[in-house]
Amino acid sequence: MKMTGPLPDPLPRGEREGLVIDSARLSASLEALGRIGAYTDESSGLVGVRRLAFSKEDGEGRTHVVNEMRAAGLEVTIDRIGNVYGRRRGRDDRAKPVMSGSHIDSVATAGRFDGCLGVLGALEVVKTLNAAKVTTRRPLIVAFFSEEEGARFGTDMLGSAVAVGRIPLERAYGLTDRDGNVVRTELERIGFLGTAPVELAAPHAYVECHIEQGPMLRAANVDVGIVTGVQAICWHELVITGRSAHAGTTPMSLRADPGMAASRVQLALRDLVRSGRFTDQLRATMGVTQFHPGLVNVVPNRVVASVDIRHPDDAVLRRAEAELVELYARIAAEEKVTLVHRQSARTPDIAFSPKVQDLVAKSAAARGLSAQRIVSGAGHDCQELATRCPAGMVFVPGEYDGISHNPREFSTPKQCADGVNVLLDVLTALAEEEGP
Amino acid sequence: MKMTGPLPDPLPRGEREGLVIDSARLSASLEALGRIGAYTDESSGLVGVRRLAFSKEDGEGRTHVVNEMRAAGLEVTIDRIGNVYGRRRGRDDRAKPVMSGSHIDSVATAGRFDGCLGVLGALEVVKTLNAAKVTTRRPLIVAFFSEEEGARFGTDMLGSAVAVGRIPLERAYGLTDRDGNVVRTELERIGFLGTAPVELAAPHAYVECHIEQGPMLRAANVDVGIVTGVQAICWHELVITGRSAHAGTTPMSLRADPGMAASRVQLALRDLVRSGRFTDQLRATMGVTQFHPGLVNVVPNRVVASVDIRHPDDAVLRRAEAELVELYARIAAEEKVTLVHRQSARTPDIAFSPKVQDLVAKSAAARGLSAQRIVSGAGHDCQELATRCPAGMVFVPGEYDGISHNPREFSTPKQCADGVNVLLDVLTALAEEEGP
Repeated sequence: MKMTGPLPDPLPRGEREGLVIDSARLSASLEALGRIGAYTDESSGLVGVRRLAFSKEDGEGRTHVVNEMRAAGLEVTIDRIGNVYGRRRGRDDRAKPVMSGSHIDSVATAGRFDGCLGVLGALEVVKTLNAAKVTTRRPLIVAFFSEEEGARFGTDMLGSAVAVGRIPLERAYGLTDRDGNVVRTELERIGFLGTAPVELAAPHAYVECHIEQGPMLRAANVDVGIVTGVQAICWHELVITGRSAHAGTTPMSLRADPGMAASRVQLALRDLVRSGRFTDQLRATMGVTQFHPGLVNVVPNRVVASVDIRHPDDAVLRRAEAELVELYARIAAEEKVTLVHRQSARTPDIAFSPKVQDLVAKSAAARGLSAQRIVSGAGHDCQELATRCPAGMVFVPGEYDGISHNPREFSTPKQCADGVNVLLDVLTALAEEEGP
Repeated sequence: MKMTGPLPDPLPRGEREGLVIDSARLSASLEALGRIGAYTDESSGLVGVRRLAFSKEDGEGRTHVVNEMRAAGLEVTIDRIGNVYGRRRGRDDRAKPVMSGSHIDSVATAGRFDGCLGVLGALEVVKTLNAAKVTTRRPLIVAFFSEEEGARFGTDMLGSAVAVGRIPLERAYGLTDRDGNVVRTELERIGFLGTAPVELAAPHAYVECHIEQGPMLRAANVDVGIVTGVQAICWHELVITGRSAHAGTTPMSLRADPGMAASRVQLALRDLVRSGRFTDQLRATMGVTQFHPGLVNVVPNRVVASVDIRHPDDAVLRRAEAELVELYARIAAEEKVTLVHRQSARTPDIAFSPKVQDLVAKSAAARGLSAQRIVSGAGHDCQELATRCPAGMVFVPGEYDGISHNPREFSTPKQCADGVNVLLDVLTALAEEEGP
């Protein structure tokens, strides 16, 4: 008998069934993971997290989360770049799975939410479904990807980029940290050099919950961010070469001081942003600067520095980059130094699935949460997955202007729970969808 | 019978006796020492010298010079801070000795003249006297002092400062390099932890030949510099603390970026010099800058930097320093960061002995060399010795604007020989002087 009548209920299934995640359990889970790699920040006295990819602390964090996955009944697979997948069976277990996750590696000065909320949030969704004895049609996979931050081996979204085939495994294996340690060896050392193939079979969809890492949602007093995509990102590595000279004797006019050039680039970055010619959405940062030989009484002969610029519109970023490169040339000429820049990363702006955005909006509305569309300023694993399947993100606001990559990073238990409840709705809705 | 008649001959004894140093031998000697710790500079392809204090290379250099001293008949003594003294007997061997020397340690990007010319030049004087079978009335001592550069343990003129009692031996022993190595252990490792007391018995006089390390003499086409003293020096170590934040999301207005503050200090230094308010003799340099944590996508939370300012007039330097400290405060307030500065070195301007200056001038005139009075921009061991006895310096011009602390550092064989011939005259004149 053929059914006729209204279209399928647009309300996501999770909400329809009245499921609600356990906020206290989620907070406790974030705190437990945050204790692994905890350190006390010198300047603020706050306790932060330092869990650089493939470090001893990352290994401990991974083992902790794998144990949590297994305790929640997930079947754990580790691939050859250390990505970890925890699978929950579906009613139709051969249907393409719905995936959710993020990363648990961190920068050297992190808080406990960046990445971890997405992993532990997805795990909280599983625990909620377990408690309610709900089995979705499609399997669910909770994932965490390796070296998302790029803080140790210099390439961000490393694990997810390898999984979707953007970066070859062998190239990833050969990346080195500052001390010359190689990815493959370090993965092996912490016991997470898995045997599963890295090539990811395209999931039905991928959804990631993440803190905003910026001030917009909190300033607008909004509960949830509907992420429309990720802004375009461009990294430059600068090597500025001048001429070392005696600090006490060499007149300014005879110097070729690469440090002076680096400082001028730094200030030029801010001028570029403040000019307004690239809208107020341009971001520009010099995160690395190191003078060589680095002696009090020697004019440096070489400065290594980095530039990070971002904009939601790739075309605008391209214009900003072109102007920056002209600035490099002008400053180098005026300071009589050589400035070589290498584009060490470049990603265009990425648009997330409209379907996932709509599901996020509907869930928020059904739960009485305020929501707002937002472009992600940071890169995320989701942008890699977006090349393989419909993908999207739920953003959670952060206190203190949404500060992140800082021990002060903090989202309240309610902010976290709101985001993960929306994640629950979206994942369960997607997991009921028809098709292979 | 009492002599009457003209005053003693004002012409220095060396010249009177027609002594001339062996320029080729001096050059060969500089080259031989320059091969120890030689390295190839990445940017220029030039061969430079890297012989940091108490390193393996410094140990090899020291052994080489000690062997040279012994070959020249000198009796070698090593004191407890590693200063090395090679003594040549005088006709009146109990009279106070005349001392000459410098240092053989180097910065990480050095040439082969800085310091070495003074040590090997003094040794060349001894070889010349040996060859001529001349014995001076007073003993002569050829000295080289430990860690003059301060490039490894952060305190320049370390060995000579300990010898004259300005720095206590135990404090010197406890100084550490960047890797936490301690002076005493490092001295012991290279076999130069001597047993002689460090307290230097005041010599009759001390004279040091050194490259100018600046452009003045060469620009004026002058053969020899008569050094009137050393300019005042002030070092600041800056620790600037801001707030780390995500580079991709945090708007400029919400940042507290210590890197931005460091760059502004760097440019302010040059503005201070260019203002002309401190005459054109002010020098200002930022030799160290390092961002922490030093990641492409993280606004730094801490920057460590150094400032070196110098001026021939201590009162002027004091004014410049006061203005600089005000600048620190203003920049820190505007950038919403904390800037703490520590005065890590401070020496007032030092005047050298008028008698030694006159002897240098007379020798130059007698040898048909052009000469000019000049203030030293760099600190030298001579300024430490000047607190214990009449002391002075002979400067030798350098090619390429007198560049130093750079593999390009170069003085021609003639320039070196001119300086050392003057040194010969001055030392032999002083060594004939009457008295205890």
